[in-house]
Amino acid sequence: MALWNQNRYARDVRLAAGTRVAQGKRVAAEDATKLLEAVLHPGDRVCLEGDNQKQADLLATALADVDSTKIHDLHMVQSGVVLPEHLDVFERGIAKRLDFAYSGPQSQRIAKLLFSGRIELGAVHTYLELFARYFIDLTPNVALIAAVSADADGNLYTGPNTEDTPTVVEATAFKDGIVIAQVDQIVDRVPRVDIPGDQVHFVVEAGRPFFVEPLFTRDPAAITETQILTAMMAIKGIYEPYGIRRLNHGIGFNTAAIELLLPTYGERLGLKGKVCTHWALNPHPTLIPAIESGWVEQIHSFGSEVGMDDYIRARSDVYFTGADGSLRSNRAFCQTAGLYACDMFIGSTLQIDLSGHSSTVTAERIAGFGGAPNMGSDARGRRHPSEPWLKAGREADPHTSAALRRGRKLVVQIGETFGEKNVPMFVEKLDALRLADKLSLDLAPVMVYGDDVTHIVTEEGIANLLLCRDADEREHAIRAVAGYTEVGRGRDHRLVERLRERGVVRRPEDLGINPLDADRRLLAARSVKDLVHWSGGLYKPPSRFRNW
Amino acid sequence: MALWNQNRYARDVRLAAGTRVAQGKRVAAEDATKLLEAVLHPGDRVCLEGDNQKQADLLATALADVDSTKIHDLHMVQSGVVLPEHLDVFERGIAKRLDFAYSGPQSQRIAKLLFSGRIELGAVHTYLELFARYFIDLTPNVALIAAVSADADGNLYTGPNTEDTPTVVEATAFKDGIVIAQVDQIVDRVPRVDIPGDQVHFVVEAGRPFFVEPLFTRDPAAITETQILTAMMAIKGIYEPYGIRRLNHGIGFNTAAIELLLPTYGERLGLKGKVCTHWALNPHPTLIPAIESGWVEQIHSFGSEVGMDDYIRARSDVYFTGADGSLRSNRAFCQTAGLYACDMFIGSTLQIDLSGHSSTVTAERIAGFGGAPNMGSDARGRRHPSEPWLKAGREADPHTSAALRRGRKLVVQIGETFGEKNVPMFVEKLDALRLADKLSLDLAPVMVYGDDVTHIVTEEGIANLLLCRDADEREHAIRAVAGYTEVGRGRDHRLVERLRERGVVRRPEDLGINPLDADRRLLAARSVKDLVHWSGGLYKPPSRFRNW
Repeated sequence: MALWNQNRYARDVRLAAGTRVAQGKRVAAEDATKLLEAVLHPGDRVCLEGDNQKQADLLATALADVDSTKIHDLHMVQSGVVLPEHLDVFERGIAKRLDFAYSGPQSQRIAKLLFSGRIELGAVHTYLELFARYFIDLTPNVALIAAVSADADGNLYTGPNTEDTPTVVEATAFKDGIVIAQVDQIVDRVPRVDIPGDQVHFVVEAGRPFFVEPLFTRDPAAITETQILTAMMAIKGIYEPYGIRRLNHGIGFNTAAIELLLPTYGERLGLKGKVCTHWALNPHPTLIPAIESGWVEQIHSFGSEVGMDDYIRARSDVYFTGADGSLRSNRAFCQTAGLYACDMFIGSTLQIDLSGHSSTVTAERIAGFGGAPNMGSDARGRRHPSEPWLKAGREADPHTSAALRRGRKLVVQIGETFGEKNVPMFVEKLDALRLADKLSLDLAPVMVYGDDVTHIVTEEGIANLLLCRDADEREHAIRAVAGYTEVGRGRDHRLVERLRERGVVRRPEDLGINPLDADRRLLAARSVKDLVHWSGGLYKPPSRFRNW
Repeated sequence: MALWNQNRYARDVRLAAGTRVAQGKRVAAEDATKLLEAVLHPGDRVCLEGDNQKQADLLATALADVDSTKIHDLHMVQSGVVLPEHLDVFERGIAKRLDFAYSGPQSQRIAKLLFSGRIELGAVHTYLELFARYFIDLTPNVALIAAVSADADGNLYTGPNTEDTPTVVEATAFKDGIVIAQVDQIVDRVPRVDIPGDQVHFVVEAGRPFFVEPLFTRDPAAITETQILTAMMAIKGIYEPYGIRRLNHGIGFNTAAIELLLPTYGERLGLKGKVCTHWALNPHPTLIPAIESGWVEQIHSFGSEVGMDDYIRARSDVYFTGADGSLRSNRAFCQTAGLYACDMFIGSTLQIDLSGHSSTVTAERIAGFGGAPNMGSDARGRRHPSEPWLKAGREADPHTSAALRRGRKLVVQIGETFGEKNVPMFVEKLDALRLADKLSLDLAPVMVYGDDVTHIVTEEGIANLLLCRDADEREHAIRAVAGYTEVGRGRDHRLVERLRERGVVRRPEDLGINPLDADRRLLAARSVKDLVHWSGGLYKPPSRFRNW
């Protein structure tokens, strides 16, 4: 019998070793490293919780401090490589192999460690794909997670930032793995049970909250008039004609501008109740004016956002909240919702090539993908029709009979022809290809492939790639909106005019938009303070966003 | 404030009404209908738990018994339409609108109710898509679910058949909905907490287990030699050359035959450890011999299977199990795993047309989709490479540069040219198209689209659609394996021979398989009794599968 229960036996050995530094399930913060040294084995697959928002930071530090002569060759499987400690474990020889999805602030250092061979790369994933592998071939032996509070039985309250935790715990605890949680405090009774105690083996009391990055906070004061123009074009040229009700917005100022134009420009176009009613979206502060103006019916969130807790609690009709009144987020379900139940994904990127492939990788930075490849892909398993989806399908494929024609998800890339530091967004060749060469990768790290992109929006206009009938038309539709970049200057004016006549390319004037109307006064809120005002004082921005 | 918390207020009103027929959270079985009449409102969106396996059968009956003058116009959003009561609610005017994924035994009656306009159809979904919509635009007001046991606080033990429950509860409980669970019994302490009590509002003690259909049990005695031949071809012509390690098998005798050939034919080919190591799969009894022979490293399951509980418990290294030792299944995560972490889906179908579109709908039966559209689609958001996936990508698209070429998931349809009752599997036009006409559907209910299918396997050979370069080649590759059906007889022999030379079509002899070797003696188990024997007596088949 024992032959077939070896993992359970191994788990019990780990548990017994861990118990020696614990009182019940409780472990003192200063013993965290000792606990990890007791529980971990060389070569273990370890999931250290952390994504683009929340971080199990105490456990990350504790892991980076283990004795590498005892614990080494770990295989890290985790959503985010974000904290310095996430890479320290590779430099110190504690970990060897990495499968991940997102790296924000560490994108430069992770590139160096990959170039030097210090990290053996499994693959760069999109979140939902990595979660999927947790259940098939990347199941963690040990998960190090973060929660707000725990009771003596190990029941966890993850609070508004539930995010990845239930997924990580399910994959680990139900495959004979060990789950170790850091919590701010241990309490008599948790406000709600996000993770049942029988799935949690050890609880480390940090005495402080886990780290959360306010990644989805965009200061309206920093929104430019060019961004306002692209936002107007997106609303009038895409949201209105397709009638987009169910959608996701990526991070960035272009989509923040759209959110802030809904109660002004959108209202003027008579779109309230007709677009933007159901969202897969984090609690973006810039959506507050649209919510307060009655645009939004419902939002499901991947994670929370710093400072939005009181506002969410007071707007429970809009958000998913628990019996305790605070947000319940869930990255796996929200990514699934984005894939299968949304009609549009719109987001920004760093580079787009002539085929419409886009990437956020540059020669020196590997930023990872996060959710974009999933949200920004056409779900071929989808079987329910909706007007926007059917219209996009008709545009892409006018010749197939209606009953056999699939719809298409709208995948929109929005940005300025020249991005930060005046670097062109349009390129002949993605840096991702150079990186693939340099690291001998089987696949270049393309974020969204050209055949999934349906529209590109810049201040020059909208390119509708659904209407392009061959690679040449596609290339010139892209060049047409690439402005004064080299790619843009390479366009064939006559071909572009023909595309314009067919509505493949639409300039601001074709949409009845005067670029001079793209004025900051159109923004429903022009500062973070305005957002606080819209929220009736319920939104509490982090201090770095307060200048009053 | 109340303006923005109306749903919460409505929930509290429902709770107060329900509490009048409850003691704490506990409701007597005979009061179940009274509870539903108290809690439900006309027009509610209701999720009645039930898929292709488990059923909240007591609550289904209770719902069908409510007074339709009080409760009417419900919008049912549920995975399965399986029990007679699931349709009774429409006949009795209690429910009006339906969004679902699967209908097995009710496929004929549901068709009649749709034709007569008694059911207003939302859409037929694949499971994961429907789950996605629970979080966006089909969020239930009330969920009626099934568990094994509950404690006084409402903590639920769902046992091996956890399946859809956590997903349904999450979407409902965290959006101010009401969750009502039927349980076999109320206990002092549940064996493990699958659903925390603060997400459960009422518990109805049924005094008997919820119904479970042993849908994944295939009696080896019923496997034909033709099915054995197709299984040999699949193993030698697909599993071996692609090196498929991570996969899902659909329901059916063809794939059951593959499972039973692994320890015999597969072993002879030297494939042990090289294929079929990681699975997204229910606990198929026909996989027992392969597990016992050491082929299988890990299985994650959508649901459980009747009679497999003791075996699973004793083979915890292979299955996902809880602290109590019994299986933990999860349909949402297993579907996600099938989509993003498996390299192959192989399953049977009823009809395939000349484009490779397949459907299980006939003129009189609407069987629904279940998981096939999701499992049987190419995940375009996938970003991690694997050998099978890259090889399939190379075959489909030899001209794109490697770094920009995506891989492909293998989607294999397997069956005999003439199926049950000698009905041909290959047709000029899918019945699904006639049905779409008749019901004025926007989309025909196609289960797997031709552009997602990569291989078709029949006793005549394997058609590799990845290697087809145009619609004509594709059509003739399909005709080539369609045997003596009308579609098969319509083939151009010279074109087929050319396809055969290129390996697009492979006959058994091209694979070195002699059809005369397809003998039942190749099956590792030839009866249910053999399976019991392989399991060391741990597998306890349901009585209908016992003839000894």
